[in-house]
Amino acid sequence: MITAKVKWAEDMHFIGQSGTGHTIVMDASPDYGGFNSGMRPMELLLIGLGGCSGMDIVSILKKKKQDLRGLTINIKGKQAENYPKRFTEIEIEFIIKGKNLSEEAVKRAVELSMEKYCSVKATLEGSAKIIHSFKIENID
Amino acid sequence: MITAKVKWAEDMHFIGQSGTGHTIVMDASPDYGGFNSGMRPMELLLIGLGGCSGMDIVSILKKKKQDLRGLTINIKGKQAENYPKRFTEIEIEFIIKGKNLSEEAVKRAVELSMEKYCSVKATLEGSAKIIHSFKIENID
Repeated sequence: MITAKVKWAEDMHFIGQSGTGHTIVMDASPDYGGFNSGMRPMELLLIGLGGCSGMDIVSILKKKKQDLRGLTINIKGKQAENYPKRFTEIEIEFIIKGKNLSEEAVKRAVELSMEKYCSVKATLEGSAKIIHSFKIENID
Repeated sequence: MITAKVKWAEDMHFIGQSGTGHTIVMDASPDYGGFNSGMRPMELLLIGLGGCSGMDIVSILKKKKQDLRGLTINIKGKQAENYPKRFTEIEIEFIIKGKNLSEEAVKRAVELSMEKYCSVKATLEGSAKIIHSFKIENID
């Protein structure tokens, strides 16, 4: 069981505490009565997707003895036009940097995360189509 | 379009940057090669759900001229047993504190968030059954 607690501070400012003991601030934009003093709740879903798949890919590439030097993940989410404006499509791009990376190993690691392991992806894809891509940047 | 970037730092440690300019740290538990130096990605989904519905409820109750003094949201998520271990059920409990709060107004605010406005709820319920409840604590 995963747990969290969220407490209202003031205005649209909320404090989120995770069951594992970490804290973040959320806030709305000025259009919605906030002061942009923290993340939007919908942004957290995209960041969770990036973190979850990133952890999979790093651990798979390490098991495959790949010399990984960097991983950047760009995520974009499109919402439905009408309320409740759920995510309908999410694009996730992995930029994987390393030395003599095998394209096959990278492709497989991305696929294993997307198709088999990533819990956040599996949760979000109940609502949003998730499109992934990757780029390899080999360094000398 | 909502955007985010996630960067690998080291081990299972990742930095998430939201398109609105905020940053958080994610990490895995020691069982998965991490050091528990930040949130788990799956926790972010629950916190996002709490923040999203909390913002709705606060703004609806303010419009209804309710004297709201506190809001705490407890969230628990159950995962599937097998990989990818998506969320299958999420319980969210709203503890709403105020002065002479109308039970009808609170009930309606919770319902409006859950059924009509909350984008995170609408996204997660593609995968997880979401069960909500609320408690009112009236203060003198």
